[in-house]
Amino acid sequence: MSETTKLLDFLQQRVPADDASHKQLCTAVLPALVDAVADISRVLRASSAVSQVGTANAFGDDQLNVDVSSEEAVRRALDGCAAVVTASSEEDPVEKPTGCRPEWPPAPDSQEELYSVAFDPLDGSSIIAPNWSVGTILGVWRGPSALHQDPQTRQVAAVLGVYGPRTTAVVALRIPGTPPLCFEVAVGEAGAADSVVVRPDVKLAAAPFKTRYFAPANLRAAAEDARYMALVTHCIQNKYTLRYSGGLVPDVVHALVKGHGVYASPVTAASKAKLRRLYELFPLALVVECAGGRAVDPATGADILAHPSKDTDERAGLVCGTAEEVDFVIKSLLG
Amino acid sequence: MSETTKLLDFLQQRVPADDASHKQLCTAVLPALVDAVADISRVLRASSAVSQVGTANAFGDDQLNVDVSSEEAVRRALDGCAAVVTASSEEDPVEKPTGCRPEWPPAPDSQEELYSVAFDPLDGSSIIAPNWSVGTILGVWRGPSALHQDPQTRQVAAVLGVYGPRTTAVVALRIPGTPPLCFEVAVGEAGAADSVVVRPDVKLAAAPFKTRYFAPANLRAAAEDARYMALVTHCIQNKYTLRYSGGLVPDVVHALVKGHGVYASPVTAASKAKLRRLYELFPLALVVECAGGRAVDPATGADILAHPSKDTDERAGLVCGTAEEVDFVIKSLLG
Repeated sequence: MSETTKLLDFLQQRVPADDASHKQLCTAVLPALVDAVADISRVLRASSAVSQVGTANAFGDDQLNVDVSSEEAVRRALDGCAAVVTASSEEDPVEKPTGCRPEWPPAPDSQEELYSVAFDPLDGSSIIAPNWSVGTILGVWRGPSALHQDPQTRQVAAVLGVYGPRTTAVVALRIPGTPPLCFEVAVGEAGAADSVVVRPDVKLAAAPFKTRYFAPANLRAAAEDARYMALVTHCIQNKYTLRYSGGLVPDVVHALVKGHGVYASPVTAASKAKLRRLYELFPLALVVECAGGRAVDPATGADILAHPSKDTDERAGLVCGTAEEVDFVIKSLLG
Repeated sequence: MSETTKLLDFLQQRVPADDASHKQLCTAVLPALVDAVADISRVLRASSAVSQVGTANAFGDDQLNVDVSSEEAVRRALDGCAAVVTASSEEDPVEKPTGCRPEWPPAPDSQEELYSVAFDPLDGSSIIAPNWSVGTILGVWRGPSALHQDPQTRQVAAVLGVYGPRTTAVVALRIPGTPPLCFEVAVGEAGAADSVVVRPDVKLAAAPFKTRYFAPANLRAAAEDARYMALVTHCIQNKYTLRYSGGLVPDVVHALVKGHGVYASPVTAASKAKLRRLYELFPLALVVECAGGRAVDPATGADILAHPSKDTDERAGLVCGTAEEVDFVIKSLLG
């Protein structure tokens, strides 16, 4: 298979030689996020009795004790990373200064290399109990805020942590002026320091496809939406392979690792948009685009990254994966 | 949630007080199998670059390096367990004496407490690369062979190991003359010695069901089988929740942990039976039955456990889970 490179060496090589303005991103921020993923993996392994902690998060979701610990793991990592000045998450959705930044706000004319991180610490609560793979979603934004920013140019990196039989992460990096990058990391017990890049070029394949995969999310919506039902029937008749865990991160990462796949979470009259743009859709879309795929809003057909987020609770559906499959799904759903 | 009991204490209590004839099963065999699960979990965590080892197993499947290591882990555990005298597996399907048994065969009139173990060391090769949960399937048979034995009475225990964010196992025990038992174990790093029972009574729920889950395996077969297609459409129209990872163990364990679900892997003209009765279907069926569910051959409608296995390569389809859902699926498929 692919040869392995140490993650820290790999990232060091990604700092553009003639442009040190993203040095902290490669040498401090991304390593801190991989440390957080390693930390969450330890939390999950030790959580033999996963139980609800009895509180609800700000959006009213049931919150599991592992959600709380995962949130704390990411916050800890960010507090130790001087370049990350603000953060907000699905569990605590108010963007606020991290612990490492007592002088706040930065001077408006600051030339400092600053970042904001928007994240979902643990996605897939419904499949934690049966011990299915779950994930973490992290988006890194250039500047002191992720809100009202152009996602195409200001969200410069994203990390999808996958907690399964082992711990892995798919990392995307899109520094303006340099080629986009998507790679897979085997996350070591000690975090970034003993992580290796196992797949230096995660890329969705071009046609013809050996196997076509589909992941129809919120399939119950097909009961009320003839177009979604027709799409699912089309996929079955055309012998796509079904893989749908119900965990957003493992479902999308499946397509990336297999080199083909389409994930469809449509929005219908009866089933409202429920994926948060800031914490889930933006980072996922960056990763998919950096792997050569598309991530589209099924309600409009527009790219997920086409519009900034005005607040932390904006939601949408998602169709993402292999570009031509995404186009077909959108055409099927929007007519 | 449930209170936890140490696995070894829990098993000790399961030895029927007036019948020491299954003592080794509870105090040595099952702990050895849980040790093997812990061992495989370590193998998987350390396998950062999962690659094909380049050999094929006896059935011609592609064999991954982790398959080989998992097979070795189970064999090692069995070699250390004097009551297990023979074993066979999906990777090495000839039933033969374990290493702990130099004097072989045992005297035909032996009153010794002897067992044979039939197992699939690592199920779910296709979802190893994307880091989805996978599993181990282990069946324990009373006597020196698993072949030509009545599965109803001679397969006395089964273990399903699940490798996900943590390591868990669902264990079933059906000692003739005592009530069947199904429980879930959080498997510790050190194996049975630091494992705890987190769900002492795994039970599929009775109607009415809050959420209905379905896992349609080999869905491409629905393209050629109008009955399967109609069944899938029925599940969508009736708003079942789709959960299908493509890993047999996680898919079945999902139903057990959630308390509801139906897994359907039908056999059609174009898609042959591919699940091995000895290594996959028998242990899964025992677990599902001990949890109050049904496991049925979709080609005949007969219980999976109704007929002995004549050789190690016999295959069939599978419909299992909540009894009334299984009945409905079988009626739908067989008409």
